[in-house]
Amino acid sequence: MSPWQLVYYTQTRRGNGDMRHVIGIDAGGTATRAVLLDETGRCLGYGRAGAGNPTSAGEHLAMSNQLAATLAAIGDSAVAPDVVMLTLAGGLGTQIAPMVTEALAGAGLTAEVHVVGDVMSAYFSATAEPTGYLVLSGTGAISARIVDGVLDGLADGIGWLLGDEGSGFWIGNRVVRAVAAALEGRGPQTALTGLVLAQVDDETPQEEEPRRPEVWKVMSRVYRRRPVECAEFAPLAFAAAATGDAVATSILEGALAGLLTSCGALIADDDRPIVLAGGLLYDGSPLSDGLRARYPGRCLRASEGTAGAALLALRAIDAPADASTLARIHETLAPLIG
Amino acid sequence: MSPWQLVYYTQTRRGNGDMRHVIGIDAGGTATRAVLLDETGRCLGYGRAGAGNPTSAGEHLAMSNQLAATLAAIGDSAVAPDVVMLTLAGGLGTQIAPMVTEALAGAGLTAEVHVVGDVMSAYFSATAEPTGYLVLSGTGAISARIVDGVLDGLADGIGWLLGDEGSGFWIGNRVVRAVAAALEGRGPQTALTGLVLAQVDDETPQEEEPRRPEVWKVMSRVYRRRPVECAEFAPLAFAAAATGDAVATSILEGALAGLLTSCGALIADDDRPIVLAGGLLYDGSPLSDGLRARYPGRCLRASEGTAGAALLALRAIDAPADASTLARIHETLAPLIG
Repeated sequence: MSPWQLVYYTQTRRGNGDMRHVIGIDAGGTATRAVLLDETGRCLGYGRAGAGNPTSAGEHLAMSNQLAATLAAIGDSAVAPDVVMLTLAGGLGTQIAPMVTEALAGAGLTAEVHVVGDVMSAYFSATAEPTGYLVLSGTGAISARIVDGVLDGLADGIGWLLGDEGSGFWIGNRVVRAVAAALEGRGPQTALTGLVLAQVDDETPQEEEPRRPEVWKVMSRVYRRRPVECAEFAPLAFAAAATGDAVATSILEGALAGLLTSCGALIADDDRPIVLAGGLLYDGSPLSDGLRARYPGRCLRASEGTAGAALLALRAIDAPADASTLARIHETLAPLIG
Repeated sequence: MSPWQLVYYTQTRRGNGDMRHVIGIDAGGTATRAVLLDETGRCLGYGRAGAGNPTSAGEHLAMSNQLAATLAAIGDSAVAPDVVMLTLAGGLGTQIAPMVTEALAGAGLTAEVHVVGDVMSAYFSATAEPTGYLVLSGTGAISARIVDGVLDGLADGIGWLLGDEGSGFWIGNRVVRAVAAALEGRGPQTALTGLVLAQVDDETPQEEEPRRPEVWKVMSRVYRRRPVECAEFAPLAFAAAATGDAVATSILEGALAGLLTSCGALIADDDRPIVLAGGLLYDGSPLSDGLRARYPGRCLRASEGTAGAALLALRAIDAPADASTLARIHETLAPLIG
């Protein structure tokens, strides 16, 4: 059954008598995930679709994927949600909400649509505390302060060319810069050189004296792709630092310093939780360890963003959304994700 | 008379009896300049045309402008050059020479074509010494070692994303990053903030809480243009440093360190000349001063690149190309440029 045929099943029916239902959506650059839950936090359905961010995927494709994931989460239940909470990167709320409302209406769904930044879903994936902080480092990097469930302050997150200090781009760019310098004899030798050259081995070097072919290979890879894709080299810094490489260690120390400076502009000397999110802040990462050392006892690791979107959706209908609710969301979401 | 009509005048005639003639071309990203001179270094004609770099302007336009400048330099003299020396950015010699030869042949000129990097014309604009060094900082940054008139080594010059340490991009990017950090309270206050905000004042900020409109203005400018255009902010670092601003001073110190590291990988402890080129190494620039302090008595300021191309053209026909020849080139070129 195509998502578009599902509209006939979801037109008017409300499930489970007077029980209200909501949809939480985590729309990302490569995948969109949606969950249907009831007002007690019990997850009933889960759906996936492709890229859901209008900035990178375009509005049409993003709307289409957001709707597809929503209808897949509703599935055969034929439950009509009261609220759809869409979370995605960037501050696009006022522009996106009417488009999503219209897309849902086209599928016979009359839900109220809320749009908030994905820093909110990342934060509430780990804690139900309405006030706290988020530190995220993935391809980009951002810190956020949440107060009473509302985004109250941001630091950095302004992209690879202006900021994103301590992000995957920031680290990966320094990795290739260090390797280029080492290859040209204007920087220290580093284990990163071998790792980067292995990763760009399929590039065809320009044969032009007096540059070394290895330098051409690195140039070819970096300038052929989008700048932000330098993030592909970030994992090499973690690998080389783990073997004691001084250049890689110094890059990661710089990244940690950048993250500490950004989040330090927001985080007060209180007991509020600090949620660590993004691919570079995995448990055991030197960056996570550094943040935990600076803020002992306060750091939590972010989980599935859809869970945070689900909790935000419950808050939007004034349903209970405390720690036990979040625990129920996680318990009932996990088997659906499989 | 269109340049294409000139071909009928330049078909076969050689001027001044047995005197040989050459053309030197400095083909840049925005303008192409050509000079016609005889084998004694006496400049006879000068021509200008638009963008002449095939990488940025496209091959067709670049060839067309190179030919137009050449024919304008020949002008009414109807002198047919024996050699055309084309100098331009990037290592494109083997690909470009046949195209230029063909373009000239289409205009009835059978000159031998040589193509070398514009680091060579920049170097020989200031000295006729066949062995020495070049340090260039403009939008990009590169260092070169020239041995016996041949490019022998390069350091950096591999573009804004991988290198160009100490360049206009490098400085300008740090300027806007520092301003973004200051505006967000995650970096020190700096006089650069007012200077940058004045420069981006025509940007329309996105009104999206919780970011300040000033941050949106900077983001709008930087991401709307090509990354390399961050170089537009480099002069602000010089202006703010001149008033004692600590952030700007630190940025320029970093730029000088980058330039010293790059050229230091090439420059030997000898007496060979070091030519300083590019818009940021003007006489009295803190970067020039730093290079002159490190290499006392060896630094010369580059001049008109066409003069260097002219000297290289004379070298290509084994004509005398010593200090007095270069002096004659400059003396006779200046009135033609006007």
